[in-house]
Amino acid sequence: MSNKVFVNIALSLDGYMAPEGMTMSDPAHKNWGAKWGALMAWLIKQQYFRHLLRPLFGDGGETGPVNDMVRHTFERTGAHIMGKRMFDQGEVSWPENAPFHTPVYVLTHEKRAPWVRPGGTTFYFVNEGPEHALALARQAAGAADIRISGGADVIDQYLNLDAVDELEIALAPVFFGGGRRLFEQLSDPLPRFQIDEVVNGSAATHLRYVRTPGTQRNP
Amino acid sequence: MSNKVFVNIALSLDGYMAPEGMTMSDPAHKNWGAKWGALMAWLIKQQYFRHLLRPLFGDGGETGPVNDMVRHTFERTGAHIMGKRMFDQGEVSWPENAPFHTPVYVLTHEKRAPWVRPGGTTFYFVNEGPEHALALARQAAGAADIRISGGADVIDQYLNLDAVDELEIALAPVFFGGGRRLFEQLSDPLPRFQIDEVVNGSAATHLRYVRTPGTQRNP
Repeated sequence: MSNKVFVNIALSLDGYMAPEGMTMSDPAHKNWGAKWGALMAWLIKQQYFRHLLRPLFGDGGETGPVNDMVRHTFERTGAHIMGKRMFDQGEVSWPENAPFHTPVYVLTHEKRAPWVRPGGTTFYFVNEGPEHALALARQAAGAADIRISGGADVIDQYLNLDAVDELEIALAPVFFGGGRRLFEQLSDPLPRFQIDEVVNGSAATHLRYVRTPGTQRNP
Repeated sequence: MSNKVFVNIALSLDGYMAPEGMTMSDPAHKNWGAKWGALMAWLIKQQYFRHLLRPLFGDGGETGPVNDMVRHTFERTGAHIMGKRMFDQGEVSWPENAPFHTPVYVLTHEKRAPWVRPGGTTFYFVNEGPEHALALARQAAGAADIRISGGADVIDQYLNLDAVDELEIALAPVFFGGGRRLFEQLSDPLPRFQIDEVVNGSAATHLRYVRTPGTQRNP
């Protein structure tokens, strides 16, 4: 297959994807709103992202290599996969026009009919595990790529399946001190990646890794 | 004071300073030797490092910005601070001519007379805690800088004291899946850093952070 499975996330310097106490209902709880803002400061500056969420952010924003990466990430993606906790938080906070614009496969034990949103996003609830969700996502994406959106536990699951081709991390100079940590559940045989590219920004360092050629366990 | 307190360490992509099962007596245990080798591959290539340990590595090696960083790290350092576990592992594995060439303050509950090694390294065993060790190191270092060598728990302690001015991380594209993780014991108020410089290598990304100006709690 020629489509790629990729991860593109922001990470605190101490390795967290989300700060402790992050619940949409209370942004002041344990200061999580400020931490999340520091983690995402690089993204909120980008012209392409602002344009996508224009009602929130207005026009303007930076153009350049980071903005190009943001655009490329959105444009290459033909399907998303996420965990139930991420979906639950998003369900109460995404705008009606959910920011995916592709099929989204939600890993869950809950049975639920597909949820169609305006703008091309449809959430499918998958009960048969991560490999089945990936097969559905590949079928839906066609020649486009599949993004493993999160959370941390779901990304770790796909890394353990050796299903991730590309790992893109925006490493932000912020400490969370607690929360949901990425790479906490990795198991042997450990995935193998090599450095592909680094793009420097003032609010994050954009690290791009690709699977070391010849190391895939289930081609 | 004009001398700086700095950390300069290698970190696996999943945030570990040392792989699980790392004991000098058995390099094959849990494959730790191979993991450590992958973490340190960038360093072992550098001309300055090879020269320092010429009996082990012979001559040759890369010159360039990473090599310059390695030289600068050694040359700027007037005193080291480390934990007892790091010392214990080193005691059985460092060459007679220990690789520090400065006073080294070892945080420990054990009482022991200073241990003088050829080549300018003397180990002092400090029982009065990290702040006292830092005061001794500052005095010994004069205008030179103080390196917090490790392990992870000691670096976290100095970060929690807000005593670290510069944080230099060689982030290697390797997963450990377990071991001694850095940034595991941080507590509020969390230290604040900003990106200063990034130097790209093929075997590690060299991230340099400096304390955000005006945020030091105990100037």
